[in-house]
Amino acid sequence: MQPSLILNILGFLYLFLSLTMIFPLTVSIIYKDGCVSAFLYSIVITVISGLILFYAFPSKKKELSHRDGFCIVTLGWATVALFGSLPFIFSGSINSFTNAYFETMSGFTTTGATICLSVEQLPQSILFWRSFIQWLGGMGIILFSIAILPFLGVGGMELYKAEVPGPTPDKIKPRIAETARILWKVYLLISLTEVILLLAGGMNLFDSLCHTFTTLATGGFSTRNNSIEYYNSPYLETVFIVFMLLAGINFSLHYRLLLGNLKGFWKNSELHFFLCVFLISSALIAINLRLNFFDSLVPSLRYASFQVASILTTTGYSSNNFGVWPAFPQCLLLLLMFIGGCTGSTGGGIKCFRIMLLLKQGYRELYRMIHPRAVIPVKLSGKSISTGIMEGVWGFFYLYLFLFATISLIMTLLGLDLITAISSVAACIGNIGPGLSAVGPAENYSHIPTLGKWLLSFSMLVGRLEIYTVIVLFVPEFWKK
Amino acid sequence: MQPSLILNILGFLYLFLSLTMIFPLTVSIIYKDGCVSAFLYSIVITVISGLILFYAFPSKKKELSHRDGFCIVTLGWATVALFGSLPFIFSGSINSFTNAYFETMSGFTTTGATICLSVEQLPQSILFWRSFIQWLGGMGIILFSIAILPFLGVGGMELYKAEVPGPTPDKIKPRIAETARILWKVYLLISLTEVILLLAGGMNLFDSLCHTFTTLATGGFSTRNNSIEYYNSPYLETVFIVFMLLAGINFSLHYRLLLGNLKGFWKNSELHFFLCVFLISSALIAINLRLNFFDSLVPSLRYASFQVASILTTTGYSSNNFGVWPAFPQCLLLLLMFIGGCTGSTGGGIKCFRIMLLLKQGYRELYRMIHPRAVIPVKLSGKSISTGIMEGVWGFFYLYLFLFATISLIMTLLGLDLITAISSVAACIGNIGPGLSAVGPAENYSHIPTLGKWLLSFSMLVGRLEIYTVIVLFVPEFWKK
Repeated sequence: MQPSLILNILGFLYLFLSLTMIFPLTVSIIYKDGCVSAFLYSIVITVISGLILFYAFPSKKKELSHRDGFCIVTLGWATVALFGSLPFIFSGSINSFTNAYFETMSGFTTTGATICLSVEQLPQSILFWRSFIQWLGGMGIILFSIAILPFLGVGGMELYKAEVPGPTPDKIKPRIAETARILWKVYLLISLTEVILLLAGGMNLFDSLCHTFTTLATGGFSTRNNSIEYYNSPYLETVFIVFMLLAGINFSLHYRLLLGNLKGFWKNSELHFFLCVFLISSALIAINLRLNFFDSLVPSLRYASFQVASILTTTGYSSNNFGVWPAFPQCLLLLLMFIGGCTGSTGGGIKCFRIMLLLKQGYRELYRMIHPRAVIPVKLSGKSISTGIMEGVWGFFYLYLFLFATISLIMTLLGLDLITAISSVAACIGNIGPGLSAVGPAENYSHIPTLGKWLLSFSMLVGRLEIYTVIVLFVPEFWKK
Repeated sequence: MQPSLILNILGFLYLFLSLTMIFPLTVSIIYKDGCVSAFLYSIVITVISGLILFYAFPSKKKELSHRDGFCIVTLGWATVALFGSLPFIFSGSINSFTNAYFETMSGFTTTGATICLSVEQLPQSILFWRSFIQWLGGMGIILFSIAILPFLGVGGMELYKAEVPGPTPDKIKPRIAETARILWKVYLLISLTEVILLLAGGMNLFDSLCHTFTTLATGGFSTRNNSIEYYNSPYLETVFIVFMLLAGINFSLHYRLLLGNLKGFWKNSELHFFLCVFLISSALIAINLRLNFFDSLVPSLRYASFQVASILTTTGYSSNNFGVWPAFPQCLLLLLMFIGGCTGSTGGGIKCFRIMLLLKQGYRELYRMIHPRAVIPVKLSGKSISTGIMEGVWGFFYLYLFLFATISLIMTLLGLDLITAISSVAACIGNIGPGLSAVGPAENYSHIPTLGKWLLSFSMLVGRLEIYTVIVLFVPEFWKK
């Protein structure tokens, strides 16, 4: 462990964060919404903190170890949410530190769970910042999952070592820098396209920008209290469905697609699985809604496909209050929360490739009942998966469910009803946002007790950083020399 | 596959079943409850079916294959429930075939979910039969899990190959016979002790017998509408707690204990885990009940420990309506449904040894994050667990949850609310009995739609036979030559 190097990099991260605050500052100046000083104070505090760490702990240019990596990522996300919450506090938009931290963590982890009773009353610059931190978090998570995780060997992600776009030198720093450059371009390009398409649908520039930020990040914060339902526009909903799905797909694939490698894009078996789950779930929910909720097929299909895309990709927008839908769609949406997006996307959850590997091994074990002596490897896209990777995937699955169960249990201890407890944790650890019952799409998280908000903030962080990265810091062995 | 041998053994099973019907017939004669003819008809039909199969398909004395084993066990349980339901139908105690099959399957799988609105109105002989089939099912499951499963290699049960009591010759038939003889004795001895202790507590002989049958089987059928709450006796509740826990412990350990091997009994790490879960959960629920439900500590401890023992061992008795307890005890009880008893007990659920192995591997994967090159085997009671066994355990865990999720989803499609759907499937696949909400301890399963009852009957069977045994019959590969 190299504490000096870790603090140095954190300092650099805060300096970067303070630069990003210039954008909402500009928005505040343009809209004259009275938040200029809030952003200025925040920038000053963040810059000073960054400078102190950056210069007091000079980097000795040593190579990063695994442990350093875990520390930087976890502390990075946890403390960036701290500095990111300053504008909410200084502007008076959010009244308590717990609420501000919850909202910011929900932003940077691209969750989208909110404690705001009415977002439409927030100043423009604050609304902008709230969406912008999701976009930043989304970029961070793509970089983390594509460039860093495979090399830290977290939860079976070693599988994707070979698929990192760009040159893959052994040293971690130049690799991250190069991958970051490529992925920023892809991310920016898709964002720009969405903004244009939203503008074409009659959405104003401000809303288009904010919603693009939160679509690409599969974050789900909206500038409207009723989320996408406010616009009541099939065109806009279609644009959102397409871009939510794009954001839920591995960004390495988008990079390949942009290079003209259409075959490499369509050959990906995780993508097939992801799209199949989307189509089948949409169809099932649409049929159920047609029979039990709506009078005709068109709205059933429209709202079902939007909501499935939103929950499966872990975005969390709503175009219809699914909290009042029948039990079947609610149960299916709850299950989709656990599946989540593809690897290397901004989507959360367990991720499609893990669910696929689990299904395949489940079937393999059945096969072995029949042929006890047969040696059958689990395969993905034609490649045999090593035992080590499978163990990583199993361990991930178990820890995910174990944390989900334990935190849900504590939430009931705080007085929440069973469905609220279960669905709030599922929605936070999976980085979705809205859950069911008292945290449903027409509700918010403001009524959750303080301890519960901190637990849910922790869940968002743990879920976003693929469980291991955070939990490993709680293993005593981690801190031994 | 040897269909002739399979049918021959099934015929033998039906003949055995018809013999067991002599006991309730005797009860009917003694109590003059008007069910003599119902049992006579049932015996005749069962005997004739048994004789036809037994003599029309003579055993060629060939050795049983794996596939034969899966077929016999699954078909055996499914069809014995068919013949076992005849007395309910002929006596007019249960009004539909679906209900009668559900109740009988719930009996033979030692689940304890009931469709009876008022059990106190049933004739004595029918009440006796209802409890007695649980006792028979319990014995069957001990034999199955101790003598058969380890050799079929189901869900990591190979682990217990060496622990089968009695001689372990390679041939399957003599081993089963010898193990059965030993275990029957242990089972009878413990049952006898419980009957005496219940009589000593003032319970009448009939109720003592019936409740002993359903305690030892961790079945949970009661002769009273209010289950154990009816007696309102701390002494009886203590006896039940002790015997439910005994029934939730591996019967090989009881055998060792009876041989005087106290050390071998206490050294078992699965037993430690089982008792720890019982003690910690009881304490947590007692504290919560004291703070939110009862006025003093004594009833809190009393009802908490009883309910935890009942749910953890998958018995399903209730001594207080936990359906109206706060959300925390309900959530914890729901989680305990998934843990279940020890291997080789009559308890259902995922089983303690699997949960232990999953926890250990989860931790091992965390350790490997820190020491990526270290080779650390997962150990249980000091023994290293092979990769093959771990894969079996993982596969089991995943299939269990996959079936739970899928069947819950279908239950919501039938119009059940989310908690009823989830908890009814958890309670049936785990062989517990009562769930929460509309299938809570003060409710019953009579209002579940017909398709739902069949699905739940299937869940009981699948859960009871350790998932693989049943599901493997649905794999096309199974039926190929």
